[in-house]
Amino acid sequence: MPLIRLTVPDHLPDTSVQALAQAVHGALVACCNVPQADRFIVINRLPGSALMLDPYFPNVTRSADACIVDITLLGGRTADQKQRLYRHIAAGAVQAGLRADDVMVALTENSAIDWSLGRGMSFDTVAASDTHPL
Amino acid sequence: MPLIRLTVPDHLPDTSVQALAQAVHGALVACCNVPQADRFIVINRLPGSALMLDPYFPNVTRSADACIVDITLLGGRTADQKQRLYRHIAAGAVQAGLRADDVMVALTENSAIDWSLGRGMSFDTVAASDTHPL
Amino acid sequence: MPLIRLTVPDHLPDTSVQALAQAVHGALVACCNVPQADRFIVINRLPGSALMLDPYFPNVTRSADACIVDITLLGGRTADQKQRLYRHIAAGAVQAGLRADDVMVALTENSAIDWSLGRGMSFDTVAASDTHPL
Repeated sequence: MPLIRLTVPDHLPDTSVQALAQAVHGALVACCNVPQADRFIVINRLPGSALMLDPYFPNVTRSADACIVDITLLGGRTADQKQRLYRHIAAGAVQAGLRADDVMVALTENSAIDWSLGRGMSFDTVAASDTHPL
Repeated sequence: MPLIRLTVPDHLPDTSVQALAQAVHGALVACCNVPQADRFIVINRLPGSALMLDPYFPNVTRSADACIVDITLLGGRTADQKQRLYRHIAAGAVQAGLRADDVMVALTENSAIDWSLGRGMSFDTVAASDTHPL
Repeated sequence: MPLIRLTVPDHLPDTSVQALAQAVHGALVACCNVPQADRFIVINRLPGSALMLDPYFPNVTRSADACIVDITLLGGRTADQKQRLYRHIAAGAVQAGLRADDVMVALTENSAIDWSLGRGMSFDTVAASDTHPL
């Protein structure tokens, strides 16, 4: 239940976008103890003109392919986990045919009680009864 | 000023999406002391392929109709209020013709000072002067 | 790295939307110590029917042109800075040809460690090494 949202320019080939999506999820699994099956991704394709991203801030060079990855996830990951997450996402993006400079990530944290994954149940209840990892 | 965002596959009939939107707002009114007039909903229809949602995690069965409801709202609701909210949303979704397993909810909290509902005024000022409920 | 997201009805002229986007960024620069080059904006144009916004809550009058500005930004801005931000955005919106009542703002805060602006680096590292302002 991290919820991954990709905002990508619509000229990107679908295979790259799909590969980026898989890379982000894979990085969460590898670095943040997210279960493999815990995969929720939304892809928002927008015209390139709808992404107005500074080409250089703070120390990168963005192209017209620049993407935004925003992730809502449970609080509690350490700085080290987040730093590893960013490196994994960047490496996965490169494997997806994108440039590492073109992938920006923003995290927003919440709590287990802030999620219902379906059936009207709060996730903290599910987690408590099923001893699911986060 | 909860801000409700529905992300739904574009094959869903408009009547179902509208009914889900009303159900989410109604649940906030019923369970979280949100005023009836305090209704701000954005509906994002995306191609089904843009919603990559695990079909089973953690203990539900999602169909191609699965939707995401994310809500930004003032902090301070109790666990009990949130649990009731999820149940109300799920019940409303079923009345809207959707399956309870197909509705996922994510909450993100902020503070009254984090909202301006218009006219350049912060909501905490409005709330203080008009004794509006949250 | 505030990330600005505009959700606007698609009948708005592009010039107004662009001017609103510039106004929001300019307000962040003027009121919240955001560097001029630190500009990340996503514009989501939706059919008017996808924005279901109460026409009057709490004390404004919204038209069919009503827009939502949501901003994810580093925590730490004061109430005064946020109040000035809202006033600046509203003034800029008016200059963009919009009505001040038609611009709603929602802020969500996170931390420096919650951002990677590219190249797999966390922003807190970049900020520490380059003494960038926030």
